[in-house]
Amino acid sequence: MHSTVSMLVGLLVVLAAAKTAGELFERMKQPAVIGELLVGMLIGPYALGLVQQTPSLEVMATIGVVILMFAVGLETKSREIFHVGRTAFIVGAVGVVVPLAAGLGFGRAMGYPTPEALFIGTALVATSVGITARVLADRGLISTRIAKIVLAAAVIDDVLGMLVLSVVTGSAGGDLNPARIALTMVEAVGFIAIVVLVGPRLVAKLEKPLEGLHIKNAPFVAALGSMFAFAALAETIGLAAIVGAFFAGMAFAECPERWGLATKTESLYEWLVPYFFVMMGAAVNVKLFASPAVLVPGLVLVAIAVVTKIVGCGLGIINEGPRTALAVGVGMVPRGEVGLIVAAVGQRMGIITPTVYAMIILVIVVSTLVVPPVLPGLFEWARSRSASPSLASEHAAVGETA
Amino acid sequence: MHSTVSMLVGLLVVLAAAKTAGELFERMKQPAVIGELLVGMLIGPYALGLVQQTPSLEVMATIGVVILMFAVGLETKSREIFHVGRTAFIVGAVGVVVPLAAGLGFGRAMGYPTPEALFIGTALVATSVGITARVLADRGLISTRIAKIVLAAAVIDDVLGMLVLSVVTGSAGGDLNPARIALTMVEAVGFIAIVVLVGPRLVAKLEKPLEGLHIKNAPFVAALGSMFAFAALAETIGLAAIVGAFFAGMAFAECPERWGLATKTESLYEWLVPYFFVMMGAAVNVKLFASPAVLVPGLVLVAIAVVTKIVGCGLGIINEGPRTALAVGVGMVPRGEVGLIVAAVGQRMGIITPTVYAMIILVIVVSTLVVPPVLPGLFEWARSRSASPSLASEHAAVGETA
Repeated sequence: MHSTVSMLVGLLVVLAAAKTAGELFERMKQPAVIGELLVGMLIGPYALGLVQQTPSLEVMATIGVVILMFAVGLETKSREIFHVGRTAFIVGAVGVVVPLAAGLGFGRAMGYPTPEALFIGTALVATSVGITARVLADRGLISTRIAKIVLAAAVIDDVLGMLVLSVVTGSAGGDLNPARIALTMVEAVGFIAIVVLVGPRLVAKLEKPLEGLHIKNAPFVAALGSMFAFAALAETIGLAAIVGAFFAGMAFAECPERWGLATKTESLYEWLVPYFFVMMGAAVNVKLFASPAVLVPGLVLVAIAVVTKIVGCGLGIINEGPRTALAVGVGMVPRGEVGLIVAAVGQRMGIITPTVYAMIILVIVVSTLVVPPVLPGLFEWARSRSASPSLASEHAAVGETA
Repeated sequence: MHSTVSMLVGLLVVLAAAKTAGELFERMKQPAVIGELLVGMLIGPYALGLVQQTPSLEVMATIGVVILMFAVGLETKSREIFHVGRTAFIVGAVGVVVPLAAGLGFGRAMGYPTPEALFIGTALVATSVGITARVLADRGLISTRIAKIVLAAAVIDDVLGMLVLSVVTGSAGGDLNPARIALTMVEAVGFIAIVVLVGPRLVAKLEKPLEGLHIKNAPFVAALGSMFAFAALAETIGLAAIVGAFFAGMAFAECPERWGLATKTESLYEWLVPYFFVMMGAAVNVKLFASPAVLVPGLVLVAIAVVTKIVGCGLGIINEGPRTALAVGVGMVPRGEVGLIVAAVGQRMGIITPTVYAMIILVIVVSTLVVPPVLPGLFEWARSRSASPSLASEHAAVGETA
């Protein structure tokens, strides 16, 4: 019975802290998500210790980020992604190569062995689609064209990031198996192709049968089931669960309005998503940052991470004008879950030291904290006085809401 | 990463099994909750083994039953409870004394030592408000007067059950401390009085401030926070978490329609509540029932549990006519969480044997499975040709929806 009390208290403390911090930050015209991350650091085990990383809070955090990405997928119609697909792929791919190379170079210049340097590069690869999606969703910017490009590119670089990780761990472990890497790649591309092509059609086909069921809100239940199924499947084939959840949402993006999926998901979103961000903050050992041996090279690595993403992703879309390139590049700066996974794998394999681990965490924290305050303004700026007239007509073509 | 996959798969399997079974039972005009309990037994660790009692599923089940009782509380206006308060208290109290005495007598007649016999009686005390509430809510009967009486009486006997348990464990452990028992009782009554009297007024006072907050759906978030807070508080002072969640819901029962709490809670309800019932089924060791040494006395105990609740609770309300008495009595038959808690405490203290434990589980399973199919019909029957004309006028007075 004591465990029930501590579980309920944990659920309450994180929710109350998240919403209090969110309220404070909203009043300061800052994104709530930053407040949630910072309050997580504050109440987490490395500072005040009000909250521990208990199994129940870890479960809520995992479900929270899955629901976040599902909700973002629900807002993403696949034909809109096709519209931006080529652009997003170039943005994502160039945005992977530049930070990977720079991180590797930084590691070698610091005198770390090649495997450790490779892990540093890999940790810089993937944008935290969660952070960017959350900021854009909260500000009502998620259906803009630039947002679509950023989100699609972020999903693409998550996929690429997981592939790079499998190559790096394979080569570091000495058993670099080209066949296995190729298999992972084929599985990933196959999974995404099937989900994007078949998903929405299958949902349309299931419209009548689902509405004929006797249980209440069958379509909503089916959507949640698909979310868990696709998340588990994605994780199983070496992608991240959040990538699967995103595509599950996309499959339901064109479902009938009367199902009310967006509204129903919103109730889950507002309750559960903050657990992810608070627990992400709570996982940060803030004390490590006090050491100059971590802080000085760490801040250099932060600068590299920020600049290489802006340059890499910006280069991928420079033909649409410098403002769009800057907005997209900045939108791609936050690192998160995949970077954390890379750091955790590297530490478990004994390849990266606690110092490098703390530096990677610093990159995630700073890149995450720095972007949300500037992103909404930057998006408005890029859209309001867009340099390219062809872009404006394209806006109209995809029926974008201004 | 493997743990993420198994967690997601567990969440998916339970949800899919619950909804498939629920759909089947709804089509057979049976309550979905029975399908969920039975499918839990089927896929649980003692049968097919598709689902284990993992921490993540335990968390979901606990949150599920908390949300169930919160949702029931949301539908329960405190002045309606005051209307039925005296009746419900008599129903609850007599319905506690009769099964307690009968269970004790059965245990002594079977030759068990007095402490074990006392635990048997205590396990029969508390109605599973969860089961009855779920059946009534699913059938749209929750706002009827009989439903209010049953729910109020079930909450009262949960409270009395927890008090009896503290007395029995105290006496069995040899340190029966009258002062501590009195303290528990005062705390329980005080908690309930404060919540019932202050809760709705406080929520009304907070109306303006809550709507002035910048975060989205602040009232919904505040309601969820109160739910966790009251659940934790109730569990801390020796009541069950679900009792606290029920009163948190009641505090918000008279909140403005525009907050949409009922609709938002429904999304959580349909997703999470089935986890509780499936996991309740999964916890049952179905193999034990094959032993005649368990089954024969177990079925006798089931008969005692069923008859004494109907008689005890029916007696408490016999002045409103035999039909109402029967409907209320049958509505009070299901045993659940509190009975499980009693059995678990008794086993942990080494007072009850595995045989008696299995018998108590049998009581919970059978009493739970037997009531839902007959309850809706019985309620309609009691209401449609009510013997008491004064009752009909009272219906109109509380503005009951027929």
